[in-house]
Amino acid sequence: METALIKTDTATISSDLIKKMDAYWRAANYLSVGQLYLRDNPLLKEPLKLQHVKNMLLGHWGTTPGQNFIYTHLNRVINKYDLNMIYVSGPGHGGPAVVGSTYLEGTYTEVYPNITQDEEGLKKLFTQFSYPGGISSHASPQTPGSIHEGGELGYSLSHSFGAVLDNPDLIVACVVGDGEAETGPLATAWHSNKFLNPATDGVVLPILHLNGYKISNPTVLARISHEELEQLFLGYGWTPYFVEGDEPELMHKAMAATLDKAIEQIREIKNAAFDKENNDRPRWPMIVLRSPKGWTGPKEVDGYKIEGNFRSHQIPLAVSASTPPEHLQILENWMKSYKPEELFDENGKLKAELAELAPKGEHRMGANPHANGGQLLRDLRIPDFRNYAVSVPFRGAGGEGDTYVSGRLLRDVIKENQQKRNFRIFGPDETVSNRLDIIFEATNRQWDAPVDPHDEFLATDGSVMEMLSEHQCEGWLEGYLLTGRHGLFNCYEAFIHIVDSMFNQHAKWLKASRELPWRRNIASLNILLTSTVWRQDHNGFTHQDPGFIDHVVNKKAGIVRVYLPPDANCLLSVTDHCLRSYHYVNVIVAGKHPAPQWLSMDEAVAHCTRGIGIWDWASNDQDCEPDVVMACSGDVPTLETLAAVTLLREHLPELKIRVINVVDLFKLEKNTEHTHGLSDKDFDALFTTSKPVIFAFHGYPWLVHRLTYNRTNNKNIHVRGYKEEGTITTSFDMTVLNEMDRFHLVIDVIDRLPECGSKGIYLKQQLLDKLTEHKHYINANGKDMPEILNWKWESKLNDETK
Amino acid sequence: METALIKTDTATISSDLIKKMDAYWRAANYLSVGQLYLRDNPLLKEPLKLQHVKNMLLGHWGTTPGQNFIYTHLNRVINKYDLNMIYVSGPGHGGPAVVGSTYLEGTYTEVYPNITQDEEGLKKLFTQFSYPGGISSHASPQTPGSIHEGGELGYSLSHSFGAVLDNPDLIVACVVGDGEAETGPLATAWHSNKFLNPATDGVVLPILHLNGYKISNPTVLARISHEELEQLFLGYGWTPYFVEGDEPELMHKAMAATLDKAIEQIREIKNAAFDKENNDRPRWPMIVLRSPKGWTGPKEVDGYKIEGNFRSHQIPLAVSASTPPEHLQILENWMKSYKPEELFDENGKLKAELAELAPKGEHRMGANPHANGGQLLRDLRIPDFRNYAVSVPFRGAGGEGDTYVSGRLLRDVIKENQQKRNFRIFGPDETVSNRLDIIFEATNRQWDAPVDPHDEFLATDGSVMEMLSEHQCEGWLEGYLLTGRHGLFNCYEAFIHIVDSMFNQHAKWLKASRELPWRRNIASLNILLTSTVWRQDHNGFTHQDPGFIDHVVNKKAGIVRVYLPPDANCLLSVTDHCLRSYHYVNVIVAGKHPAPQWLSMDEAVAHCTRGIGIWDWASNDQDCEPDVVMACSGDVPTLETLAAVTLLREHLPELKIRVINVVDLFKLEKNTEHTHGLSDKDFDALFTTSKPVIFAFHGYPWLVHRLTYNRTNNKNIHVRGYKEEGTITTSFDMTVLNEMDRFHLVIDVIDRLPECGSKGIYLKQQLLDKLTEHKHYINANGKDMPEILNWKWESKLNDETK
Repeated sequence: METALIKTDTATISSDLIKKMDAYWRAANYLSVGQLYLRDNPLLKEPLKLQHVKNMLLGHWGTTPGQNFIYTHLNRVINKYDLNMIYVSGPGHGGPAVVGSTYLEGTYTEVYPNITQDEEGLKKLFTQFSYPGGISSHASPQTPGSIHEGGELGYSLSHSFGAVLDNPDLIVACVVGDGEAETGPLATAWHSNKFLNPATDGVVLPILHLNGYKISNPTVLARISHEELEQLFLGYGWTPYFVEGDEPELMHKAMAATLDKAIEQIREIKNAAFDKENNDRPRWPMIVLRSPKGWTGPKEVDGYKIEGNFRSHQIPLAVSASTPPEHLQILENWMKSYKPEELFDENGKLKAELAELAPKGEHRMGANPHANGGQLLRDLRIPDFRNYAVSVPFRGAGGEGDTYVSGRLLRDVIKENQQKRNFRIFGPDETVSNRLDIIFEATNRQWDAPVDPHDEFLATDGSVMEMLSEHQCEGWLEGYLLTGRHGLFNCYEAFIHIVDSMFNQHAKWLKASRELPWRRNIASLNILLTSTVWRQDHNGFTHQDPGFIDHVVNKKAGIVRVYLPPDANCLLSVTDHCLRSYHYVNVIVAGKHPAPQWLSMDEAVAHCTRGIGIWDWASNDQDCEPDVVMACSGDVPTLETLAAVTLLREHLPELKIRVINVVDLFKLEKNTEHTHGLSDKDFDALFTTSKPVIFAFHGYPWLVHRLTYNRTNNKNIHVRGYKEEGTITTSFDMTVLNEMDRFHLVIDVIDRLPECGSKGIYLKQQLLDKLTEHKHYINANGKDMPEILNWKWESKLNDETK
Repeated sequence: METALIKTDTATISSDLIKKMDAYWRAANYLSVGQLYLRDNPLLKEPLKLQHVKNMLLGHWGTTPGQNFIYTHLNRVINKYDLNMIYVSGPGHGGPAVVGSTYLEGTYTEVYPNITQDEEGLKKLFTQFSYPGGISSHASPQTPGSIHEGGELGYSLSHSFGAVLDNPDLIVACVVGDGEAETGPLATAWHSNKFLNPATDGVVLPILHLNGYKISNPTVLARISHEELEQLFLGYGWTPYFVEGDEPELMHKAMAATLDKAIEQIREIKNAAFDKENNDRPRWPMIVLRSPKGWTGPKEVDGYKIEGNFRSHQIPLAVSASTPPEHLQILENWMKSYKPEELFDENGKLKAELAELAPKGEHRMGANPHANGGQLLRDLRIPDFRNYAVSVPFRGAGGEGDTYVSGRLLRDVIKENQQKRNFRIFGPDETVSNRLDIIFEATNRQWDAPVDPHDEFLATDGSVMEMLSEHQCEGWLEGYLLTGRHGLFNCYEAFIHIVDSMFNQHAKWLKASRELPWRRNIASLNILLTSTVWRQDHNGFTHQDPGFIDHVVNKKAGIVRVYLPPDANCLLSVTDHCLRSYHYVNVIVAGKHPAPQWLSMDEAVAHCTRGIGIWDWASNDQDCEPDVVMACSGDVPTLETLAAVTLLREHLPELKIRVINVVDLFKLEKNTEHTHGLSDKDFDALFTTSKPVIFAFHGYPWLVHRLTYNRTNNKNIHVRGYKEEGTITTSFDMTVLNEMDRFHLVIDVIDRLPECGSKGIYLKQQLLDKLTEHKHYINANGKDMPEILNWKWESKLNDETK
């Protein structure tokens, strides 16, 4: 790459402006190198000495100069075309670029007044980078203008598309690293263009930064032919423009011309969409920027090629007391090659003729309010969820499917906010399967590709986003939330693990941004899990994993919430609560199949408000301490617990039983660990200090133990849950396979209460026979025994059943 | 799609053979419909009645006829070209196709003698499908010829490429669903062709099955233009051939001609590679098969379009007592449209002239030993790991980095097995960063794209596979193991969560296949996690998550193992053990940075063999019960614990301290739950029944509580670990932020032992001051205080330190 390979016309941009932009770029590069290396002498006013250099050199140079180049050029088009644009830094460790560029444009100092625009400020800016107590090497929440940290790779395009949904004036310039481009999530995210509405959504301008290397390997996309690369992006439905080379002046001209072309093409497409001239999916432009990794850095050190090689990935040049003395000189020469004296005045302030290149006010990418979405966040209009209550004429009355009921509320949330367009539902083609299809009375799936007359619920302007990629659903939703809107992700419970790592990163973002006063809270990430482990009638073992909640509870208590509503009215109450909340990840686990209903709406509201409670109507310990506590959490465990209670009360009526239902999982944890947690006193009042607790739990049983290990009655808590036994079978048989069925629960009680005596022993034998009978029956008939299918809790609502 | 759109020449295949193949296809379709619907009257010898139909209709029709079509055609080319081929069914729920086709070729009956090739066998074959106690709807481990269940979507191509590595004669015909193709992992897996060696590896023949729909949405790839689709696959580096239409005869001719062309092209490429005519990366062929979803099924039911629509995804036609009576007739007509009387003889056996179309013996895709890889598995040649021991002249002697040391062993494992080519290492471009680079003395990264003179360790025939996609690394390795080879995945600890869901599926596969006597054990999936939470000196908060092991322990105890070797000699011992094991997932968590070494090789072997043990040399309770147990697991926790013990023994010498180190995490669990678990007696002997236990743990502290909640001394176990506090800082400062450092550990002891008295209170205050001093020092200097950096355990190896 000696000469620039320019695939576009050179722009009619004045050579004076090119010179100034080059100086601006040099300033950004200078600041980046300074952040990597210096803790003093930031303007190199005196000869560089070792004591000016940091003790530990940490950071990544490779991606930085290319990103500085892009940022500088984006500033020009923002000014020229009066754009509303934010910047997403996809490659890992782009921190020095974004920090430096937002410092040059002034936003950094506005957000962090201590980092002044002078020599002292430069010294602090340099020192804080990758330093204990300082800032991270990514575009972390600490970085103004960032909605995408990029610590883990792969989600930059999904975040960008999420950001532009329902933001018709916004352009997200998304720099995609060529390493990142090898990840699965990124590879499928290019197809997001089939889901964008050119009239009502904004635009993503991807800039694939082909700098050729990852950590120590070349990248795939940098080592395929130009022809293949072009075909790939044409095949993905984009119009790729190539800017390739390493000679700055030629590259400036090529980049400026290409960006002009891209922005003008975007405008044409947008105008055509507003005029409805054309309903075909547009071919949006994208840019491939091929420039050397570590561009403008040392060419060679100790005989190794650095610029244009993987060796420039991190610190390209070691400088310390134990490195060759000439390294210090190389560093000084390198920094001076940017000619800082032309860039900064005597006090260390960027010279005025350069500073004026930056956009003004909120046009600066570091100051754009979309990148601090909480600033733009408005409450949803939510109809009163009580209006969607299902009638429960008696305990255990047949339901319609809990998610189906909550679908009506969600449908009306969509309706009520249609004008603001600030609420969307995301799912990997499971919204119908998850029985939320009633929402299609109010909206459609957004789809900007051909439609067949036999398709259903597709339109270019729907509020539902469905692609068979959990990564895309999660990434789109995160981008949507981070820019100040609301949403819900519905997903099969087992496959939400696909985004475990994305959840991690978002939870970390929320935790870190909460610590920054200038970052405003955003709407919660709401995840509705259904098609759960207990209802895999036709999917089986591969679809059985309730462990996402185990994963979630490891994250910071201030950020995560987990709800397991036992019926539809509870799900309505929980859904309303989650949609109104801020800055959490709310996980809701609910059933989709018709299942028994237990609580009236008033009861449900009271129960969900407490989060945990004794179900008096199912208990008979009102006048004394119970002999046993039957606890349950989740819809199927609740059903089996109540069926077990029926058996116990019929056969062992002298037993005093307390039934506890848990909606809010964190109630089990101590209040010292989680704000939702119960105090020991309250926990003991519910679970006693010495009586057996038989706990039927929706998920892996050990999660309950993990939450309750330090409770007084810990030793007596016996948990039943999913223990990786399952196949295609009925819901009841699933509970048998995992020993959480009504019969095993009763046996668990008998085994723990010697006072059940010979009656207990006799009942246990009967139940074991029943389990054998069940096994034969279901194998022969492929369905449950009638007594299981027809079991009902025999009481009217509000009846006393003592 | 009325007429076939044939992009290839029609083959010179006899019309007699076409007719027979069509009959074979009809037979497979007939068996598929039978599996979905019938429990009796399998040959329709009497008029179909409701009692012949299953009570619950479960299963998926949509993908099935297309897969039957492909399987039939693959059989022909296997015979014609004498191919060694296996079949990977990527789309979800392809079970009826693979089960039916392996039944027709005879393998199913050989594996399951009860499912005979007669009317009685057909009845059983039909009834067992998606039936309690029967078989699943996927190509599960129960399915002969399957290495890929496809319950979760996205990994078919990665598995296929893993299967062909080092299998130069093998072709994997990989059917990719167009729904599946939207997932991230699948979207990047097309690039696997840049990592294949045409001479020493086999070939993947992808067949993208564009049937147009997912669950209830159209698919992206089915709704882009033909031109875009072609560009996309050209861009991915393939030569796509299109077979498109719905008229069977035309489609047979087109598919046959296309497959001939593809196989011949594959042969040419292979021959050229053997002859080394050409070192350029070849453009392998792939096939795009566009056929209607639910092909040959009902065209319309109750006014809805079924064939060629999403409505054929699952059961396309409801048949029960509550559906319109004509549905039964539609079903009968549908099944009879395949003309079973032409296909099966009076006894229900496939007619001889059709049966002869199937390949013979191990050429049958259901009987190919590569798809039951344990049959081909041979032990690795592993040099004696003791030869790689590091010398530990004194406790706490400086190390070279534990993974660096184990790299020497891995290098020689590669060398020793180079001839057999049955061991590979996989990683997302982190092998060098994880300090395993010494393996490149023995091999290279396999890379079949252009190489630059400044690249390192790239070659077309390396044993290391590196792509920046954890999904690909995991998927390739799984495919490699499932076909009878050995391997190791090295990964940053935090980002292994990217494959949480893949791990789930593999663990489920191992569990289910262990229950099948005919499935032979395969080599363990070995995952080496490093760049751990405690060593994020330059990556920070986003790279901190030790929770993969929490995820792993939820899976079946018989399948999973977790090891946390505290130093290099222990890591060598653990690595050797894992490489020799079968049918587990082994997770090893180890450090890569130079860190103190504790055990001689003999001690390490003894310690790792026990998995947990008292470190006598660090304890002073030899002649009595301890006052406190200091337990640790993981390298950094071990260091902090020993440093804390030094402080305690210096300042509170009268305290009796027992130091326990845990290598094998499952030792903490009860022996009733995990075969590695300690009995209560043994656990109590180690941890006492009443003394405080201060446990410094590598991961989230709650995992230890989850494992020990039901131990006698549970109440006194106090665990320190990672609690989501971190930034870019030193390893020691990370422990301070999470309160697991030596000072906090000592304070934990003092807080729990009133007998420390005023000396304890005084020491505590000193340590709190020290923590404040540390905070100031590190903020000012960016590195740890000298006393922290220079701390050493002061004893010679084998010294008595009582």
